[in-house]
Amino acid sequence: MIPYNSIIVYVTPKKKRYIKKLTPGDVWHTNDGALAADAVAALEYGAIARTSLGMPVRVEEATLYDLLMGIKRKTQIIYPKDIAQICLRLGAGPDRTIVEAGCGSGSLTLALSWFCGPTGKVVSHDSREEFTRLARRNLDWAGLGANVVIHNRDVSAGFEAAGADALFLDMREPWLCLGQIPQAVRPGATLGFLLPTTPQVSALLDGLETGPFGEVEVCEILLRPWKPLADRLRPADRMTSHTGFLVFCRYQKKCPEFDSWLAPGTRERKQLAAALEKQAARSAG
Amino acid sequence: MIPYNSIIVYVTPKKKRYIKKLTPGDVWHTNDGALAADAVAALEYGAIARTSLGMPVRVEEATLYDLLMGIKRKTQIIYPKDIAQICLRLGAGPDRTIVEAGCGSGSLTLALSWFCGPTGKVVSHDSREEFTRLARRNLDWAGLGANVVIHNRDVSAGFEAAGADALFLDMREPWLCLGQIPQAVRPGATLGFLLPTTPQVSALLDGLETGPFGEVEVCEILLRPWKPLADRLRPADRMTSHTGFLVFCRYQKKCPEFDSWLAPGTRERKQLAAALEKQAARSAG
Amino acid sequence: MIPYNSIIVYVTPKKKRYIKKLTPGDVWHTNDGALAADAVAALEYGAIARTSLGMPVRVEEATLYDLLMGIKRKTQIIYPKDIAQICLRLGAGPDRTIVEAGCGSGSLTLALSWFCGPTGKVVSHDSREEFTRLARRNLDWAGLGANVVIHNRDVSAGFEAAGADALFLDMREPWLCLGQIPQAVRPGATLGFLLPTTPQVSALLDGLETGPFGEVEVCEILLRPWKPLADRLRPADRMTSHTGFLVFCRYQKKCPEFDSWLAPGTRERKQLAAALEKQAARSAG
Amino acid sequence: MIPYNSIIVYVTPKKKRYIKKLTPGDVWHTNDGALAADAVAALEYGAIARTSLGMPVRVEEATLYDLLMGIKRKTQIIYPKDIAQICLRLGAGPDRTIVEAGCGSGSLTLALSWFCGPTGKVVSHDSREEFTRLARRNLDWAGLGANVVIHNRDVSAGFEAAGADALFLDMREPWLCLGQIPQAVRPGATLGFLLPTTPQVSALLDGLETGPFGEVEVCEILLRPWKPLADRLRPADRMTSHTGFLVFCRYQKKCPEFDSWLAPGTRERKQLAAALEKQAARSAG
Repeated sequence: MIPYNSIIVYVTPKKKRYIKKLTPGDVWHTNDGALAADAVAALEYGAIARTSLGMPVRVEEATLYDLLMGIKRKTQIIYPKDIAQICLRLGAGPDRTIVEAGCGSGSLTLALSWFCGPTGKVVSHDSREEFTRLARRNLDWAGLGANVVIHNRDVSAGFEAAGADALFLDMREPWLCLGQIPQAVRPGATLGFLLPTTPQVSALLDGLETGPFGEVEVCEILLRPWKPLADRLRPADRMTSHTGFLVFCRYQKKCPEFDSWLAPGTRERKQLAAALEKQAARSAG
Repeated sequence: MIPYNSIIVYVTPKKKRYIKKLTPGDVWHTNDGALAADAVAALEYGAIARTSLGMPVRVEEATLYDLLMGIKRKTQIIYPKDIAQICLRLGAGPDRTIVEAGCGSGSLTLALSWFCGPTGKVVSHDSREEFTRLARRNLDWAGLGANVVIHNRDVSAGFEAAGADALFLDMREPWLCLGQIPQAVRPGATLGFLLPTTPQVSALLDGLETGPFGEVEVCEILLRPWKPLADRLRPADRMTSHTGFLVFCRYQKKCPEFDSWLAPGTRERKQLAAALEKQAARSAG
Repeated sequence: MIPYNSIIVYVTPKKKRYIKKLTPGDVWHTNDGALAADAVAALEYGAIARTSLGMPVRVEEATLYDLLMGIKRKTQIIYPKDIAQICLRLGAGPDRTIVEAGCGSGSLTLALSWFCGPTGKVVSHDSREEFTRLARRNLDWAGLGANVVIHNRDVSAGFEAAGADALFLDMREPWLCLGQIPQAVRPGATLGFLLPTTPQVSALLDGLETGPFGEVEVCEILLRPWKPLADRLRPADRMTSHTGFLVFCRYQKKCPEFDSWLAPGTRERKQLAAALEKQAARSAG
Repeated sequence: MIPYNSIIVYVTPKKKRYIKKLTPGDVWHTNDGALAADAVAALEYGAIARTSLGMPVRVEEATLYDLLMGIKRKTQIIYPKDIAQICLRLGAGPDRTIVEAGCGSGSLTLALSWFCGPTGKVVSHDSREEFTRLARRNLDWAGLGANVVIHNRDVSAGFEAAGADALFLDMREPWLCLGQIPQAVRPGATLGFLLPTTPQVSALLDGLETGPFGEVEVCEILLRPWKPLADRLRPADRMTSHTGFLVFCRYQKKCPEFDSWLAPGTRERKQLAAALEKQAARSAG
């Protein structure tokens, strides 16, 4: 009942999780016996398989979350808590075109591919060929990526996209690429950035200040896990405290007058009010 | 250039945000002059419009985030930070069927509709007709909802769904509906819950313990906003501290032997080790 | 220059910290050579000592924080971040009498002893003799405790104190001891509690509701460490997410009328306002 | 029973809190009647007083926490959550001498005075006379400050202290004063800093790097309040997200060799191991 080529999570009684592709004829060898893929394929998700030595193994479908945590990594990946927020803020989804650089190991790429689906499009870039290959390999492994093109390219020389709906940069010095953004996205597009340190955030904010960008927001997403114990409910002892700062903004021209505008008569009314106050103070003194 | 019936965010120089549908012939009246929809339609997103009194107004596209924050509310809505995490954990997306109850004002419904797109499906429920109507109205307003059916139904009597990929409950006593879940979802499906208080979380964990559910996780998502000032970068003074606890699990049969299983010979080896230790202690004493 | 019997922290080039009492004639043996206490005593705090193999060792004074983290533990200790908040809320300090139960390993006892000094007093209790002895040993080791008495006593049968300024309970079921508090503290005294789980907090709140207690507050203290790197400033990757919930309140009689009181004429004014509104609605209709 | 000149908190049925000194003959006038200090003096803490119009008023002792929140402010004060951590890390207490600059409105000064008591000493500085006067007035009001001297002085020209146990700086550019610290404190002393923004933290870390300082730590303290409701226990909706970053370190000479030291033979052993590995690789290739 489980289709071949699905990604499976095997969970052992010791709660260890192994993520594997279900390939016809494969056998998974553990210290506690072997498990044949063909036997697993006859089960349904959530069922218990048995190794040759009788160990029960829970057979779970790899969810999007499992895929994101299960890809091969040669870089720090973007974590699901941040990916979730990024995908929502960028409006990933059917019919949308999202640009990304650099792809790194491809965790965000994978999620964008998932959400955009066959009618959407993901245009990814990385200047290091090692990573464009790794990201593609991870997409293939996950059975995703048909809507993704990955360019081996340094985006400080330009993106391989035009008129995109949104754009995300996960790179050390994204401020060096800001000048290339207008050619890549449509007016009003949402832009996102992930940066691990505060001096980087300051440098990016400085860069955004001088370009056609507005509605700048900075935030952190914290996921606090709890122990799922009804009678002794409480937060877990430790948690991830930091992965990175998220910056979001929109591509839109600066309008100096916008920030300084006063309604007609406002200045005059204010001057009048001030004069009246002075007068009142004088007659009271 | 901006299509009629788009949802627009108008931003004033005072940073007030007004979310409105761009309807042919409409005029938006402000204290600082009127703005005709037909004039706005000729602009592109991110441009500056002018009211009749000369006030500059930034014309922004309503993003998914803006839509979620802009719907009409008669209940506490689910917040984007939680919606993002829920949609990722449930694997919302093309080709997926997601079940939900209660829909409330429809904020999660809207995001599920966005992510699932024309090839996915959202089956929503609420026992209060007032809310099924409100959620539909909000979907219509946002130009979404073609993939959504909303049932006016108390799901403690069963869901209007079968074989769904995932299911989410945002209700006061979700433990009363757990028995109906197996009929609604496929084996291995991811289930999610939002609960504001810890006694509710404990009650739900108790309920999950007695049914065919596993891989239970509890967490909170915190979004900490920062002030976007390069030279004086720092967190905002105040933040939302709590919206709700998120609980995720999978629909899968309990397997008592799974948790208690020991590899063949483990017990024997442990007994032997203990006996040897005792003997060593005795000869040392 | 460093007085004998001081508590010293030795820091090695690998950043390992060893906390030790400076005892005349002692020698500290490490894998990288020996260090004589008498040589250390000739230094000043912050200086570098050398082992017999030439390893440089930073000689630091054990601060209050180091003492709290360095005591022998047979229980979960209360952490400095919580101790700091507790001592401030209880108003530990000269001339104050603070009651505590159970003392556990004595970390809070130690801090209370420090802050209250020779003119203050700490009255501690634990029902397990093992812990009264351990706490005393830790106080002796730290060179503190002259102002502390520790009773081997189950406080559900009463405290060995009367008229104290404040009281703190770190025990599994503090609600069982609430009836003994009035005999132990003076009217208006601040009471504090530490509890690891939410069901315990709920049970305590229920207990406080039925007794002479008011101004109840519940909070958590989170300490988020940052990496001290000027150029790559950012939060540490992981942090302690949870130690316990702190509950504070005051010993003061309930006054049912207090919560329900309305200023004379308030009800009448409200009735009049409602009547007028109705009338206005009718004439408008 | 309540001594005159005590600081009292009056709590009204609407939960408003008013902090006042109990002065003989005084009358406190409210919209709901007057309350004579002499009547309050006859009560005990926690009791209910009555205004002339019958409003019940809870009479509470001002705790250290109430004093800290109740002082007159002309600056951003340091908050109790941070003060608690600072006092613990600096080891405020009897017999200790703590140096501080600038005092601002005097909230930390007040807490240091409380914890250090008659046998300790607080030496405070501020370059603005307005604040030295305000801090003293707040100390007087609170009945504290006998152990405090406040200097109207810019500490970039030196502190009015020598050999202190610990030192705290709450100023915009503390890095300009680092050179003066060695004259003010004893070797090994703990130093603390409060800074609102990350560029300031980076600048301070740079400054500490070039001077005789070590064991640098950076952290934030977060206090998350919960709603004290047994049946609906949960965090409060909103919280203070940021007050400032705390930096702690010790005054101790840098020792370049300390950080780079290798045990005798370590380098040689490492070189040997590397050579052996190379050889093995070669013969395997």
